[in-house]
Amino acid sequence: MKIWQKNIEVNKDIEAFTVGKDRELDLQMAAFDVLGSLAHVQMLESIGLLSAEELAEIQVALKKIYAEIAAGEFVIEDTVEDVHSQVEWLLTQRIGEAGKKIHSGRSRNDQVLVDLKLYFRSCIEEMVGNTSVLFEQLIKLSNTHKDKLLPGYTHLQIAMPSSFGLWFGAYAESLADDMELMLAAWKVCNKNPLGSAAGYGSSFPLNRTMTTKLLGFERLNYNVVYAQMGRGKTERVLAQAMSAIAASLAKMAMDVCLFINQNFGFISFPDELTTGSSIMPHKKNPDVFELIRSRCNKIQALPNEIAMMVTNLPSGYHRDLQLLKENLFPAMVSLNECLQMATYMLQNISVKADILKDKKYDYLFSVEVVNELALKGVPFREAYKQVGESIENGSFKPLTELNHTHEGSIGNLCNVEIEEMMTEVLAQFKFEKTHRAMEKLLA
Amino acid sequence: MKIWQKNIEVNKDIEAFTVGKDRELDLQMAAFDVLGSLAHVQMLESIGLLSAEELAEIQVALKKIYAEIAAGEFVIEDTVEDVHSQVEWLLTQRIGEAGKKIHSGRSRNDQVLVDLKLYFRSCIEEMVGNTSVLFEQLIKLSNTHKDKLLPGYTHLQIAMPSSFGLWFGAYAESLADDMELMLAAWKVCNKNPLGSAAGYGSSFPLNRTMTTKLLGFERLNYNVVYAQMGRGKTERVLAQAMSAIAASLAKMAMDVCLFINQNFGFISFPDELTTGSSIMPHKKNPDVFELIRSRCNKIQALPNEIAMMVTNLPSGYHRDLQLLKENLFPAMVSLNECLQMATYMLQNISVKADILKDKKYDYLFSVEVVNELALKGVPFREAYKQVGESIENGSFKPLTELNHTHEGSIGNLCNVEIEEMMTEVLAQFKFEKTHRAMEKLLA
Amino acid sequence: MKIWQKNIEVNKDIEAFTVGKDRELDLQMAAFDVLGSLAHVQMLESIGLLSAEELAEIQVALKKIYAEIAAGEFVIEDTVEDVHSQVEWLLTQRIGEAGKKIHSGRSRNDQVLVDLKLYFRSCIEEMVGNTSVLFEQLIKLSNTHKDKLLPGYTHLQIAMPSSFGLWFGAYAESLADDMELMLAAWKVCNKNPLGSAAGYGSSFPLNRTMTTKLLGFERLNYNVVYAQMGRGKTERVLAQAMSAIAASLAKMAMDVCLFINQNFGFISFPDELTTGSSIMPHKKNPDVFELIRSRCNKIQALPNEIAMMVTNLPSGYHRDLQLLKENLFPAMVSLNECLQMATYMLQNISVKADILKDKKYDYLFSVEVVNELALKGVPFREAYKQVGESIENGSFKPLTELNHTHEGSIGNLCNVEIEEMMTEVLAQFKFEKTHRAMEKLLA
Amino acid sequence: MKIWQKNIEVNKDIEAFTVGKDRELDLQMAAFDVLGSLAHVQMLESIGLLSAEELAEIQVALKKIYAEIAAGEFVIEDTVEDVHSQVEWLLTQRIGEAGKKIHSGRSRNDQVLVDLKLYFRSCIEEMVGNTSVLFEQLIKLSNTHKDKLLPGYTHLQIAMPSSFGLWFGAYAESLADDMELMLAAWKVCNKNPLGSAAGYGSSFPLNRTMTTKLLGFERLNYNVVYAQMGRGKTERVLAQAMSAIAASLAKMAMDVCLFINQNFGFISFPDELTTGSSIMPHKKNPDVFELIRSRCNKIQALPNEIAMMVTNLPSGYHRDLQLLKENLFPAMVSLNECLQMATYMLQNISVKADILKDKKYDYLFSVEVVNELALKGVPFREAYKQVGESIENGSFKPLTELNHTHEGSIGNLCNVEIEEMMTEVLAQFKFEKTHRAMEKLLA
Repeated sequence: MKIWQKNIEVNKDIEAFTVGKDRELDLQMAAFDVLGSLAHVQMLESIGLLSAEELAEIQVALKKIYAEIAAGEFVIEDTVEDVHSQVEWLLTQRIGEAGKKIHSGRSRNDQVLVDLKLYFRSCIEEMVGNTSVLFEQLIKLSNTHKDKLLPGYTHLQIAMPSSFGLWFGAYAESLADDMELMLAAWKVCNKNPLGSAAGYGSSFPLNRTMTTKLLGFERLNYNVVYAQMGRGKTERVLAQAMSAIAASLAKMAMDVCLFINQNFGFISFPDELTTGSSIMPHKKNPDVFELIRSRCNKIQALPNEIAMMVTNLPSGYHRDLQLLKENLFPAMVSLNECLQMATYMLQNISVKADILKDKKYDYLFSVEVVNELALKGVPFREAYKQVGESIENGSFKPLTELNHTHEGSIGNLCNVEIEEMMTEVLAQFKFEKTHRAMEKLLA
Repeated sequence: MKIWQKNIEVNKDIEAFTVGKDRELDLQMAAFDVLGSLAHVQMLESIGLLSAEELAEIQVALKKIYAEIAAGEFVIEDTVEDVHSQVEWLLTQRIGEAGKKIHSGRSRNDQVLVDLKLYFRSCIEEMVGNTSVLFEQLIKLSNTHKDKLLPGYTHLQIAMPSSFGLWFGAYAESLADDMELMLAAWKVCNKNPLGSAAGYGSSFPLNRTMTTKLLGFERLNYNVVYAQMGRGKTERVLAQAMSAIAASLAKMAMDVCLFINQNFGFISFPDELTTGSSIMPHKKNPDVFELIRSRCNKIQALPNEIAMMVTNLPSGYHRDLQLLKENLFPAMVSLNECLQMATYMLQNISVKADILKDKKYDYLFSVEVVNELALKGVPFREAYKQVGESIENGSFKPLTELNHTHEGSIGNLCNVEIEEMMTEVLAQFKFEKTHRAMEKLLA
Repeated sequence: MKIWQKNIEVNKDIEAFTVGKDRELDLQMAAFDVLGSLAHVQMLESIGLLSAEELAEIQVALKKIYAEIAAGEFVIEDTVEDVHSQVEWLLTQRIGEAGKKIHSGRSRNDQVLVDLKLYFRSCIEEMVGNTSVLFEQLIKLSNTHKDKLLPGYTHLQIAMPSSFGLWFGAYAESLADDMELMLAAWKVCNKNPLGSAAGYGSSFPLNRTMTTKLLGFERLNYNVVYAQMGRGKTERVLAQAMSAIAASLAKMAMDVCLFINQNFGFISFPDELTTGSSIMPHKKNPDVFELIRSRCNKIQALPNEIAMMVTNLPSGYHRDLQLLKENLFPAMVSLNECLQMATYMLQNISVKADILKDKKYDYLFSVEVVNELALKGVPFREAYKQVGESIENGSFKPLTELNHTHEGSIGNLCNVEIEEMMTEVLAQFKFEKTHRAMEKLLA
Repeated sequence: MKIWQKNIEVNKDIEAFTVGKDRELDLQMAAFDVLGSLAHVQMLESIGLLSAEELAEIQVALKKIYAEIAAGEFVIEDTVEDVHSQVEWLLTQRIGEAGKKIHSGRSRNDQVLVDLKLYFRSCIEEMVGNTSVLFEQLIKLSNTHKDKLLPGYTHLQIAMPSSFGLWFGAYAESLADDMELMLAAWKVCNKNPLGSAAGYGSSFPLNRTMTTKLLGFERLNYNVVYAQMGRGKTERVLAQAMSAIAASLAKMAMDVCLFINQNFGFISFPDELTTGSSIMPHKKNPDVFELIRSRCNKIQALPNEIAMMVTNLPSGYHRDLQLLKENLFPAMVSLNECLQMATYMLQNISVKADILKDKKYDYLFSVEVVNELALKGVPFREAYKQVGESIENGSFKPLTELNHTHEGSIGNLCNVEIEEMMTEVLAQFKFEKTHRAMEKLLA
């Protein structure tokens, strides 16, 4: 059954090719499709396209479907093309004529658009939540290990003293900054496309401001042609925000794989969190972080993939857009898993003490010695030269005490300020507003 | 002259290979390098690393260099590696000992970081400005041509009535949404990395909060290891924001190339804004929009290029990052040119009237007819079927009058709301605050 | 059961995260895993690591497993990590001690490598086969419609006369050129990594030349460290070759979507091969070609995705590589479906006659008129000017007869030469050689 | 002066925007433009469009221009749009009427196409040459250091013994495989587009087979519509081939940066080939390899950038294609520099001896011990378990002698076979054939 069914039967192979993975992927949007319909019908009634009785009947039926979805009992039948058709078909089966009226003033195009935006809102909330948990774990580790020193590298060469406090804290702050992009994605996403129909609006006197409020959107995607352009664009912006988190995670995973390597040996994980080799009995491999790195690099390639699929398409809907679901939906699941798994691993990390006692790290302190001379009044460039010569002729002696006090340095991590920064950006999402709207629709 | 000069002469080929295009590209950052130094020395004096006299002397000299840069008289000499070395060398030449002290408590790493951030702030302001101008032009065209109808296409098939009001307005709204990403880039950018030194902080008692205020940054990049991670990340986020604008422009350019094609023939430009063919005397080609499309697609590939260059690099500075300037600097120039050129072309666009009078566009009105039946009480699915049959058997008659009234539709463009949305996002950049800080440093 | 099982139980979540989709994807390689083992054990016997009896016993058991795979009866159990472990486990269950010996002198790393290469060989053969069928269909259409003229566009502006003969033929020749990249992928793929063990070779006196012959490989990946580097590289090269075909298909799909648009109206497809709209009863959408375009653009993004996942990984195996299966395996299926679907659609295409009779196409003939003047002795630039003026003042008269005779032009398509070119490149794959080897192993 | 000059003056800003960097980039193709014209006019004479006298006159004039180009005296004037116009304009200035005739039967579109292909052929030859030199250096180092052992890592964990012989040889073999893609690019490139005019052929009785022979092309791009499609496609295929070399180089550079890190300390370079730090006097940074890595990663992003710029463009020329020169031309220069610089650095590499004497590498030998047990008849899985237990309880004893004898292993590097493989693929380019053709045209 297709809601655009004409008298001619579409070829079976064509149908399989065009439906693709829609039935499977659409299930993830099913609850949101019902919520979108609940708002739409309430509005239809307000403009006289449904009677109060029809509305009541439809609402009961839609809430029943919602409950079935929540209970895992909803399926998209093989003879039905997508979630929108399935819901409409169920309604028509169950309540007859009234069900046939809910498609008034909308098109599957704006239904998909609104479903996606509602779905993405919930996905963003979940990703932000998982990021916060990892953020807290990193801050905690940074505080706990703030006194344990690490070699700092530049050009992968031993450079200056660093610390576990700095290292963990850096990734926490990185995640806080990543939330700025996610907030941008949220803002682009949190606007109502419903009422744009097939991308050119409708001759029905729709009240789009009403559905905007009912669905808890911040605003409208006003222009209906632009509302349609949101498809592909929303996905790309969201993927870009995800790529920011992914880049932070992938970099951390690279550090972990390096630091757990025996030549570094700075950190370790319990045996049950590492894996072995089919031929080397001594191996304890950091597979989890390798896979986090790989998954996150894949996510980093996603915005480009989306751009490649939509670039140079003129305005107006194209079927091409359907396939974006196949890329983005699993990527969101994957990113959430990476965030959770990274948190879990870090809950179990062991950190080596006294790393810098090893003589090979003595040169880390060369700048300290230069700076000490400078503080005593030797011009910086002279001090640099003196220490360089002492290194060349083997007479260099490292300092044994570090005294870094400025903001963000080893002795003054500013984790409180970083937490404040995170709190501030998180506050701008206002997830509760969307919750209240959803709850009211289902009440 | 290299400020890290050791006793050994570096191989000439190596030097040419490693310096690359730095001398050329660094010129664009020169003014910002001086501004960064002005803030740094003021802070050094406040913590006792410079005397008041030294500070005054250095400030005079730095402001002189700033004036030389503004006058186009500043050059990076062939024997000098980069802008930072050139400024320091000039200072030392001109004021002797005091000049040697300004590198205390910082590294070229955080100098580049702060220069880039100051430069990017100014670039963002310019891009936002050019975007606003184009936005206004689009709104103006949308208002002017709001009654001229266009065919709306879905699947590139004739679908429903659209209008020039909708078409121009859609791209205006698109640009407004794109500003959300640019705002995220601005926020990530507008944090102070100065004081992170080589990425591990300094043993000097720096006052980073002070330089943050002096440079007009919103906050610090607190953690010094994270401050260093900002390199590559800031570029990527900025490129992503640029790619959003680029995607809007490229899509519009594709529409223009299609609409100017003789099979569509919806729009035209004066002859002096089109180009000819070496063998076809009748050609009037839309080269400007083809090049906007191409440049913007190149910009869309930029975030991926940056990601490819930094992915899987562990934390800490790597020389790899130097090359990001080569990608991003010209891309910002290119995007500004595209925005300006698009505005210029649109100031000269001609729009065809009465396009829909052509009988081939009759089917555009099929939904209108369906909806009219629906408004008369025929259930939507029945009406759909009836009209489908009238089309099949040739009896279909289009409506001649359109009555679209809902928000964002042909008859109710909501351009005022779109402008408000733009104004609201623009207000969050607070460019004046950064201007004031820069002016104060130079006062 | 993991073949690297240590005494410590690996955490369940970790296991789920690390196994990922391996069980599902590995099934596609199962037959090749058995073939690889058949070659390996024959070699092990030749160097004395298996007795003749053990070999015979193992061969019988492996062929049985092969038959089970062919019959769809093979499963990778939930307690088993991957296909290699499953096969080894089955062997050990069924024949005891001898089964435990087959892992001598190899690692899962080179097993995966050889499985992938054998699998990719078979995939390449399938993709090449599907490409050939589409190629033939295009040549056939080109020959059939060689006299039907089309407008040729440059800058999407009406330019010069083209023909359906040229249009179909162009894509045929494009596919023939694409085979050069696929041949390069084949050559990179068709080299034996077996015996490289974990990427550093083995202390067993393996005979890699023997397994190379048994498996029908053209050569060895000699250096064992390089053999391991083949992972990721082979996938990228293969994806690049696929992207070439995908680019040809996507471009053709874009042309189709344009040509089927009512403003062009050059081609059409039967109703049962197009789809409808949920609200516009007149729509007949070219969804199949939109989805081909979208899928092929996704495939075009694949080499970049792979590069992003492996870039900056140092030499030696990393778990990151596992995830490449998730990208590439479905992409190969998708490309094959696109090739088949494109062929099917083109078997049903209708082509409009007499398109150029429409007056709007008159200017197509301006170069013809210029050339005719030139042939009469007017210097080309003069002739160009004269015709340009006649167009400006409205006196231009098109030619009614075309006389293009040179190689590859409307009147001389050179389809025979293009077919020869295709035949020549296809002949270099020598698929039969690999068939014979596989059959011999199973005999 | 534009060869398509109409009576209307094109706007100056438009002209600057559309000409872009063409004047600068076209200089690199100038010699090839003349060569293309030399072939074209010889053919024009053969079909009666030029007299023998005109031909002779033009040939003299063209060869003079060629000599001027070779001497660096050729410029594209500011009033002239591109190299094609400049050459035609010079001819007309110098020999009058005959000069005006050389554009007969061609368009700038096929001129650019043929210029690019001739230019790319020469670039491919240079890249292949530089790759060969690096290849030989790697083979030499592999042979020289074949007995020096290295730790082999998997998952970046200490795994099994490797050697400098293997390490250097692996990258040599990698480059040999990369030549397969370059050969595919060569084949796609080495076909003649001349005669395709604006992409739809010509009504002149051109002899394209003749120009194919004169220019030393292997074949024709037969179909003229396909010949035009070669633009963008040739660039993408070439960029893909370059990305293969770049991937090998970037991976090697990552290894170098790791191996030179003090925690590994396997290799070193003389001080004059490393760089220092502005604040850390002890630093000796591997900047050259970091920049090779970064440049090569940028090159790896190039095929994607090209795809993004041409994807979804329908057939026929678009001005978008012009910008591909800006990406590809500098990338080829950059790759050549990377190849040369890598060779130079490797000529000066120092390699540490006796690395594996360090006790931390003992576990490298665990598989050796397992294998020895296996060779003595203990089933592999049992041996694996025994050794695993000895490691767990601290009783593990490494082997001191390695005996790897199979093809491609530490003791049997197969460098001769790898060299043969390289020689074989290089022989298929047949550069001499193109040299002979070029020389004959200029004779």
